[in-house]
Amino acid sequence: MKILLSALAEKLGLEFSGEDFEIVGVNTLEKAGPDELSFLVNPKYAPQMEKTRAGCVLTSGSYVGKTERTLLSSNVYMDLARVVDLFAEVQGCFEGVSELAYIHPDATVDESVTVYPFVFVGAQAHIGAGTVLFSGSYVGEKTVIGCDCIVYPNAVVMGGLELGDNVILQPGAVLGGDGYGFAQTAAGHMKIPQIGNVVVEDNVEIGSNSAIDRAALDTTRIGMGTKIDNLVQVGHNVEIGQHCLVIGQVGIGGSTKIGNGVVLAGQVGVADNAQIGDGAMVGAQSGVSGNVEPGSKLAGSPVMPAGTFLKAAGVCLPKLPELFKRVKKLEKELESLRSSRSGGDFYE
Amino acid sequence: MKILLSALAEKLGLEFSGEDFEIVGVNTLEKAGPDELSFLVNPKYAPQMEKTRAGCVLTSGSYVGKTERTLLSSNVYMDLARVVDLFAEVQGCFEGVSELAYIHPDATVDESVTVYPFVFVGAQAHIGAGTVLFSGSYVGEKTVIGCDCIVYPNAVVMGGLELGDNVILQPGAVLGGDGYGFAQTAAGHMKIPQIGNVVVEDNVEIGSNSAIDRAALDTTRIGMGTKIDNLVQVGHNVEIGQHCLVIGQVGIGGSTKIGNGVVLAGQVGVADNAQIGDGAMVGAQSGVSGNVEPGSKLAGSPVMPAGTFLKAAGVCLPKLPELFKRVKKLEKELESLRSSRSGGDFYE
Amino acid sequence: MKILLSALAEKLGLEFSGEDFEIVGVNTLEKAGPDELSFLVNPKYAPQMEKTRAGCVLTSGSYVGKTERTLLSSNVYMDLARVVDLFAEVQGCFEGVSELAYIHPDATVDESVTVYPFVFVGAQAHIGAGTVLFSGSYVGEKTVIGCDCIVYPNAVVMGGLELGDNVILQPGAVLGGDGYGFAQTAAGHMKIPQIGNVVVEDNVEIGSNSAIDRAALDTTRIGMGTKIDNLVQVGHNVEIGQHCLVIGQVGIGGSTKIGNGVVLAGQVGVADNAQIGDGAMVGAQSGVSGNVEPGSKLAGSPVMPAGTFLKAAGVCLPKLPELFKRVKKLEKELESLRSSRSGGDFYE
Repeated sequence: MKILLSALAEKLGLEFSGEDFEIVGVNTLEKAGPDELSFLVNPKYAPQMEKTRAGCVLTSGSYVGKTERTLLSSNVYMDLARVVDLFAEVQGCFEGVSELAYIHPDATVDESVTVYPFVFVGAQAHIGAGTVLFSGSYVGEKTVIGCDCIVYPNAVVMGGLELGDNVILQPGAVLGGDGYGFAQTAAGHMKIPQIGNVVVEDNVEIGSNSAIDRAALDTTRIGMGTKIDNLVQVGHNVEIGQHCLVIGQVGIGGSTKIGNGVVLAGQVGVADNAQIGDGAMVGAQSGVSGNVEPGSKLAGSPVMPAGTFLKAAGVCLPKLPELFKRVKKLEKELESLRSSRSGGDFYE
Repeated sequence: MKILLSALAEKLGLEFSGEDFEIVGVNTLEKAGPDELSFLVNPKYAPQMEKTRAGCVLTSGSYVGKTERTLLSSNVYMDLARVVDLFAEVQGCFEGVSELAYIHPDATVDESVTVYPFVFVGAQAHIGAGTVLFSGSYVGEKTVIGCDCIVYPNAVVMGGLELGDNVILQPGAVLGGDGYGFAQTAAGHMKIPQIGNVVVEDNVEIGSNSAIDRAALDTTRIGMGTKIDNLVQVGHNVEIGQHCLVIGQVGIGGSTKIGNGVVLAGQVGVADNAQIGDGAMVGAQSGVSGNVEPGSKLAGSPVMPAGTFLKAAGVCLPKLPELFKRVKKLEKELESLRSSRSGGDFYE
Repeated sequence: MKILLSALAEKLGLEFSGEDFEIVGVNTLEKAGPDELSFLVNPKYAPQMEKTRAGCVLTSGSYVGKTERTLLSSNVYMDLARVVDLFAEVQGCFEGVSELAYIHPDATVDESVTVYPFVFVGAQAHIGAGTVLFSGSYVGEKTVIGCDCIVYPNAVVMGGLELGDNVILQPGAVLGGDGYGFAQTAAGHMKIPQIGNVVVEDNVEIGSNSAIDRAALDTTRIGMGTKIDNLVQVGHNVEIGQHCLVIGQVGIGGSTKIGNGVVLAGQVGVADNAQIGDGAMVGAQSGVSGNVEPGSKLAGSPVMPAGTFLKAAGVCLPKLPELFKRVKKLEKELESLRSSRSGGDFYE
């Protein structure tokens, strides 16, 4: 695949400056060759503009002119996605329905579905048009998967679940494992059967080896367009709104409700029964419980306003041993001042 | 399935108040319909008692009378478990032993075992009566699995392991991967072969995509009735006692010993070679090393008494920047006081 | 397998003291029987030397003479690895290429490769001599796996990846899932196709259920001899150097560069676009962003020098509530001193 920069600019509605040229791929500033397009968003990488061998750089206004050829974009990441899409090869190498798969006779699988070897599709499951089930994936009984979904190798979708259209499950993701629900009894922890389900709305992506538990009763829900990274844990009866970003290794306790457009950074923990308002952002490794106001920016464990955390944990905490010494010194000085003053009183 | 509330009350030994009625299921207060039973334990959800459409609510003494019909329980979660059990359908849709499974000729599989397609059972493995091996699960050579266990899809039980009865492995759980053991040498990290095993006692449950490593030598042990949540890491030679609760994303370093009835909340990290006494409780995201006394309630990283942590990190830390200012002010004032006093001395 | 201690000493070049004797295995000090060898490295376990029933103990100079027989080693872990290796049985119970596997006709699989049932090998994949692919493992199209690798059950190696020789993937490990890359648009998060790959160099081990993402463009790289524990997340375009130790549940954000010989302890989080210099060590549960100098020892979230963290979070933080009281007392005393002084002024 080759494309003229002028043709690319026209296709994507971008402004092109420089001599026209045919590119054959996309790469980083550091690695791109003269026949590849690169891009710049993060100012941290701006110095690489000087040295890059890239034939052309896709970037925003501020960097135009620093290289021979530029494509000017008001949303570099979006246009990068569109360019890369032109060059991307679809993953996989299998077509049709493998004779080495097991499809229950009561399942309904659209004829356009790709079913790799060693896939299991349970009774009364339904798989929509254009969906691809990679090797080793599991679709439980009565589960409905929409159209144009990708279920990568060894991902598991247990029984009774509902997935919308364009859902992507990365390898090893597990949907619908039992929630963690036990009653304390004299004889030990008694399992509360988990009879709810999981609903995953359209355009959701769930990362490698993440685990989304089925509800105890009712539904665990992942809202439209939400993107969940790898190794994330979502407890039973959690509701996540639309267009959220849930970064790697986040853990969300049972029955917690998360609004729309929320960002949870890496390794954040959210307790059971919490509520996080629309548009809130929680910094990496933070611990959330209770209610978080819409639009808040929080960090720390337990969370506080992100600005406060930066000062308190980033600036002050390392100086805390010194502060203890300063306070001790103050105490001594004050004591000595009072003694001398007492002494003074004697003579007054 | 339908059941009269009076019959349900009698079956479970509960007190029923209100007009008799037939229920068809169980649901949350928010979602239950008039023909469903609901329940209330967490006072946070008490306001929903006013609005619920549930036909009956299972609850403790304090809430009786707030809805038309109640089932009175002294252990709501336990009785909820028993009610839900009446309505629960068993997961899965396969019976017998699939011809698409691989069972080594030297394995012994009880005739009542369910073996889905694409299951691997190794040489000299033994699978007890009533156990279900879901699609894609793996049972290594010489591994013994007890009776009435459930091994969900793509769970892995490596060779030489022992699982008791009523053990549940959620999808993707891995038992008996190699422990992380390397000797430092001039040529790099040299692998110490991990030749121990894992023993999982009766009634243990292990969550989706959790990983329990085999011992270097000897045994990694999970005690009877212990419940491990999703994405938990248990290092080699760890010993966990009976009836513990290990919540999502906890990590436990090698050779650590954990007593009975211990609770480790979400994302807790426990270092290598630590010891945690019976009944200890460790708050979410905490970091434990060394010895923890039985019955302790700890939090923080590194841990301190939970009450201290709540004050120190929850109340004081956010005010730390302000404290630095207060101390600086004190220092200035004291300095000025001393100067003026020195000045004063001059005139005295 | 039995071996005379004198023969073992000669084989490994160790000094043996005590009466010669035949050992049949290796075990911990606590569990070893009279016909087994044990070892001692961690001084914490030294008291067990008094009580051990072990026939011989492999240890360093300081403990020689505390038991009847000793093997003297200057690198106990290394020699332990070599001894255990003598007694270790290789895991697995299958030979040859299973007829229940799927190998694409365009794949090239060395004739010495072991392929278990339910393995998928994609088009143009290449599997080197002596490699073992356990049940349920997946090798995507165009992926090259070197010689003498072990891919344990249900591990996934997506398409287009390169693995060197002697690479070990523990069960459920996922290599080459899509990186987490989305462009923000008015319509929501737009997926940036992830068209880069993953390169894993020789002698790397990757733990159970860990996830190493493919690069957006270019390569995610794991350097020679690096050992990654369970449930670790490595983001797209990360570069990890040689001989690093990455302990359980560490998460590494996209495009981060990590030098050689770096140690990241359990549950550490590293932000996107960070850089960690050679030989740096980061304590458990710490949070790293920006640049870390070579050889640093850091801890805390955000990180500070490890010694400072121990004092600040381990010693001072628990006393912070008390410090607030001390400062308040100082303020009152100073105020009272100033008042009395003002009062004093009045009379002067």
